[in-house]
This record gives sequence, C-alpha cells and structure tokens, in this order.
Amino acid sequence: MSSDFSLNVQGKVKRVKCQKIIGVARNYLEHVKEMGAEKPEEPVIFLKAPSALTRNGCPILIPDAIGRVDYEGELAVIIGKKGKNIPIDESRNYILAVAAFNDVTARDIQLEAKKKGLPWAISKSFDTFAPISKPVLLKDAGDIDRMDITLKLNGQVRQSSNTSLMIHKVDYLISFISKFMTLEPGDVIATGTPGGVGPMSPGDVVEITVGNSLYLRNPVVKI
Amino acid sequence: MSSDFSLNVQGKVKRVKCQKIIGVARNYLEHVKEMGAEKPEEPVIFLKAPSALTRNGCPILIPDAIGRVDYEGELAVIIGKKGKNIPIDESRNYILAVAAFNDVTARDIQLEAKKKGLPWAISKSFDTFAPISKPVLLKDAGDIDRMDITLKLNGQVRQSSNTSLMIHKVDYLISFISKFMTLEPGDVIATGTPGGVGPMSPGDVVEITVGNSLYLRNPVVKI
Repeated sequence: MSSDFSLNVQGKVKRVKCQKIIGVARNYLEHVKEMGAEKPEEPVIFLKAPSALTRNGCPILIPDAIGRVDYEGELAVIIGKKGKNIPIDESRNYILAVAAFNDVTARDIQLEAKKKGLPWAISKSFDTFAPISKPVLLKDAGDIDRMDITLKLNGQVRQSSNTSLMIHKVDYLISFISKFMTLEPGDVIATGTPGGVGPMSPGDVVEITVGNSLYLRNPVVKI
Repeated sequence: MSSDFSLNVQGKVKRVKCQKIIGVARNYLEHVKEMGAEKPEEPVIFLKAPSALTRNGCPILIPDAIGRVDYEGELAVIIGKKGKNIPIDESRNYILAVAAFNDVTARDIQLEAKKKGLPWAISKSFDTFAPISKPVLLKDAGDIDRMDITLKLNGQVRQSSNTSLMIHKVDYLISFISKFMTLEPGDVIATGTPGGVGPMSPGDVVEITVGNSLYLRNPVVKI
C-alpha cells in the first residue's frame, strides 16, 4: 500500500510521503479505565510502521493465529510543515489535513509485550493495521476539538465519543511530540481512541465517522 | 536531517527514502546478560523514527534532563527491494547496502517505560539518535555474517564483537520481520548491539567500525 497522501490544495494536487505514524495511547479517560490503566500525566507515544497504511474500502488483513485483534477509532492529523519544539499556540499551522483512522492492534500480542516490558511495535504494525480515510484539509474540516467520533461494527455502534474528551488535545500533542522528534510533512498523528474498543473477526465490517466529513469503512478478512 | 540515502550503483546514483527503522533488541548473548534480560526465542523488534537519522561526523544531540543516554554499536542493513514473507534463503536479494549504526537510547526513559509496560518509542527516537555511516553496497561489503564490530568511546574500546555472534542472523531477521511488515526500499534494519553498552556524555566522541569498510564517528553535544 502506498504511503503517499494526495490532497487537493487550492486546485493543485499536493503529494506527501508518510515517514512516521505516531500513535497516542491512553488519551480518553473511558479507554484508560477499560484497559485497567492509569491516567497518564504526559501523552503516551508509540510508533506504527507506515507500511501498515491502507485506505478506505480496503480490507484489514488478519493473519491466522495472532489472537485477538481490536479496532480503535480515532481522529488522525496529517502534518504539512516541518517543525521541532512547536509552541502549543502555533500547532495548528503544522496541520495539513485530518482523517478518520483505525489504530488496529493485535491485542494479545500487545498485552504479552506489556507484561514483559517489551516494545509494542509488532502489535501495531502488521500490514493493513493502519486504515486511514480520505484526508480533508484542516480548513475544511470544522472544529477538530469538538468532533463526534463513532465506530460501528457490522452496523452496531461500539464507540461513541467526542474529541473534546481527549485528555491531551491535538495542539498539545503536536507541541509535545515535537519536543522529541522533528515532525515532517506526511507524518500522521493518531490522537488516541475513546472507550469501547473491542475485537474484530474476519467477515466483520468496521465503519468510523469523525465529524461531518471523515468516513472510513473497511472489511475484515482472514489471511 | 534528510532520510534519503544516495548510493552509487554501477555508476548511477540511486536515491531511496527511509520510511522505517526497525531495531532488534537482545540479539547478542553478552548484551542480553548485561541487561539482565532473557535470551529471546524470537527476535525482539522495535521502531525508531526516521527523523532520528543523522550522518557520519554530525553531532548526537542530548537534551538536558533526560538522564542516561547510551551508545549501541551495530551493523545496519538497508533494504533495496519491496518484500513480504521473504524466505530466509532469499533474504540477501532484498539487501541493497550495509552501514555502521548507533542505536542511541535514552536508557533511563527506556527502563522507566519497560517497568510500566509502556512503548519504547520516545527513548529510541529523539532527533539524532540514529547515526548511520555512509552505506556500502552489499556486494562490496564482505561477509556480513563475520564482521568485527568495534565501538570506541574517546578512543577506548567499549564494544568488541563479531556479527557471527548474533542470536538471530541477518537473513533470519529479514525473513522474520517481513512476516509482519512489508519491507520497502530505504528501510533500515539495525541488527542489534553486542555487549559493552554504556553511557555517553557531552564532549565524548563515539566511533563505530564494522568490517573493513563501515565507519561512523559522532561527537556528543548537549542541547
């Protein structure tokens, strides 16, 4: 799957290449509670491989014998400008677009890693474990701090929240992450999932809606 | 720092962009022992952000107040061809070049994360925490399964080993990783560090030599 993003910016197609996907764990209190975790003082940051990206309509491919695999509906932001040590009140200038995102997680593999103090990388980075919707330019997306997030599994609502309930808001996340790592055009920040995560099985269909314009739908297929 | 690699391949300059750096933890028994860890049955895989890449001669920048930061001398392989589920005996066909690599690690941050079962991403991904030497094409590099690895801190040998002592050899690593993630041209696999890791301080100079042709030298600077 290509890790390029194409966006129509004022009539011109702009292409950016994703070099990192930065995930944020434990960023909604309901999800923190359902995981039996503690509310973090600072954002909990992890990386997903860009090779895991897939698009709206494409299947989420679940390999045999990896145990439970969970959906996690999220708002993603796509960086448009290179930045380091970005002040919170300038964060918006670094966002090119936003998208609906599914931070698909091999939960059994992740829990085993957590228990042993090992990295989460594999559990988050299987091919197709990063479905992302068609991006919408920030200026056309509405208020990203007050967007409904809904995830449906086979038509039934499983996650229903609002980005206003993030523990660490988008502007803070961008500023925080950029203290450690230079953010580059095409980088994706997956801003965390609300409560209601759960397993997906082959044959399921996952739909994520964020705000009025971001929509992602992926069937789940066994390989 | 650019995450492009330029290589002279049969008189033509080939450019590839790094989309992921895959690290391998616990891949030399001496290092496993010094970390008080257990010998892993399967490779322990993590991700470093490509924005952390820096080159020979450039400074490793250590932010204030992040505690101990360690050097880890390694052989890195740079992927030249896209591949998934690569059979072990075909792994070599996917390597474009090799390089000396320093898997710089914010050890205190990593140990704190391990204790809590949290991701390692931040500890491995500060800007400049992935110094890499000028790459040498695989065909010109010699036998990558029998290369001396030496790391000197301020001229004193701190790591001295040989790639033959890897628990999981390069061919197996490529095959193993490609079961989960598609490998793409420009991806870097840092194959693990031998025993002797230790802290670096501003003012230090770290030199890594791998085989006869791979050399990496970086001064350590406080920011």
